Amino acid sequence: MTEDVAQRILAGDVRALARAASWVENRRPEAEALLRELFPRTGRALILGVTGAPGAGKSTLCDQLTEALRAEGKTVGVIAVDPTSPYTGGAILGDRIRMQRHHADPGVFIRSMATRGWLGGLAAATTEMTMLLDAAGRDVVLVETVGVGQDEVEIARLAAVTIVVLVPGMGDDVQAIKAGIMEIADVFVINKADLPGADKLERELKSYLSLAHRPDGWTPSIVRTVASEGKGISETLEAVREYHSRGSSPDRAAQIWSVRLREMLRERLLDRVPAQDFVAAGREVAEQRRNPYSILHDWLERL
Amino acid sequence: MTEDVAQRILAGDVRALARAASWVENRRPEAEALLRELFPRTGRALILGVTGAPGAGKSTLCDQLTEALRAEGKTVGVIAVDPTSPYTGGAILGDRIRMQRHHADPGVFIRSMATRGWLGGLAAATTEMTMLLDAAGRDVVLVETVGVGQDEVEIARLAAVTIVVLVPGMGDDVQAIKAGIMEIADVFVINKADLPGADKLERELKSYLSLAHRPDGWTPSIVRTVASEGKGISETLEAVREYHSRGSSPDRAAQIWSVRLREMLRERLLDRVPAQDFVAAGREVAEQRRNPYSILHDWLERL
Repeated sequence: MTEDVAQRILAGDVRALARAASWVENRRPEAEALLRELFPRTGRALILGVTGAPGAGKSTLCDQLTEALRAEGKTVGVIAVDPTSPYTGGAILGDRIRMQRHHADPGVFIRSMATRGWLGGLAAATTEMTMLLDAAGRDVVLVETVGVGQDEVEIARLAAVTIVVLVPGMGDDVQAIKAGIMEIADVFVINKADLPGADKLERELKSYLSLAHRPDGWTPSIVRTVASEGKGISETLEAVREYHSRGSSPDRAAQIWSVRLREMLRERLLDRVPAQDFVAAGREVAEQRRNPYSILHDWLERL
Repeated sequence: MTEDVAQRILAGDVRALARAASWVENRRPEAEALLRELFPRTGRALILGVTGAPGAGKSTLCDQLTEALRAEGKTVGVIAVDPTSPYTGGAILGDRIRMQRHHADPGVFIRSMATRGWLGGLAAATTEMTMLLDAAGRDVVLVETVGVGQDEVEIARLAAVTIVVLVPGMGDDVQAIKAGIMEIADVFVINKADLPGADKLERELKSYLSLAHRPDGWTPSIVRTVASEGKGISETLEAVREYHSRGSSPDRAAQIWSVRLREMLRERLLDRVPAQDFVAAGREVAEQRRNPYSILHDWLERL
């Protein structure tokens, strides 16, 4: 069955793609069989990560980038990496309607990725969704992360080109978080550049960049946008392409895959312990009936 | 050696505690041996998670809570969960001086936890640091998360009591993120309550809470603070204690430990694959010489 779906996906069938995307989301065994088959067809899409502080306008920017790419005749996949409620297990942002105007366009395929109440797993699932959209022939795959935690930042970093979106006049904590994501940017976008403080932010950024030395010698570009008005979008794409046209360094590509493999392995290893074993063990430790380390020891012996 | 350190920690020796904390941070094998020994001495501290959007003033709140607890004669441990630069591997926020005024007070022990360039792992390390401070006799352990990603939210949720800090007048994305963390709050703090919009935020919160039904029947309290002026701090502690005095439900405690065990197991399983294997495999996949799924298959066979 996965062979048939693979053929249809390669032929551009959007319904087959949607079905496969659900397999990836729900961690169905079919996903692995399918992606194993599709892997040789990957590697053609431009994978573009978009991250940044909350309120920076990442969704609007992605929407406008999609619009501009469609105007060029390019097909687009959008993966929105969202947090999930740990209580309900459902996607909190699922009902937030993303990029509504592209809804009827088969050239735009949008999926939200959410964790299912467990830590981690998001990077592995996002990797697989990216492979799927790449193999399906999407010219560009946008990976937009909604949170600004370490995981979301790392996920954006697994793209070929990473845009970090900043906005003038954010508070102290945001400055601190910015520090965590500064070093992953290939392109900086100063969005809402019509707000006061844009010049100051650009100066700070330039002064930061004059001190930072990337191993690959690239100095990240800085682009100003007002995404809500469509300003600076073509300049953003230009900056992305300028970086991308240098060609990914073999080291960088290998590093990205080594992180991805680690994440994929992690998920598969944990699947070996039945969920009810975690529940039972949790109870034993909570009641101080067993030492957590002796439980871990037993599991590791058994696996 | 760990036995000796354990004895000194139980006797209140802060230097031994600092040494053990470094073991936990650096994932040294001594950490496991030590914590296995200390585990029976855990379970006494009040573990208090503090999370919320960037700029909400979490650090200031933690600082003030620490001050108030010290005034009561309580000893405090503070664990700041920070993102890290994926390039340098060093703690980005390490040099941000935290809670400087408590620096000379042996009754306050502060550590920053950072990921070491890999996804995940932070929850396991934070759990172990919490166990250590608990066993060391700290009356209260504050776990402050700096990021607002899924992982950071989950880490805060692994506390006995979770404070979610909100602030009036945040943007759209923050509203979305708020949705992800709304359900983990035992106590809501509206910080910067002197800003316009505090009433509106409290109304929204109350209307949300009137619809939300927690399995344990608790309705989260709402406290207003101006942490920078020390306002509302004793009210916050009172709300925390009110919730805590109900006693943790056995289900909740078991659930917390089941998540912790899963995270701890995950780290240990990944340690079985040498780092250079990930690097070599990453290169093979990046160059399309091997299919990632056949590599995973080989690893899973071997493990």
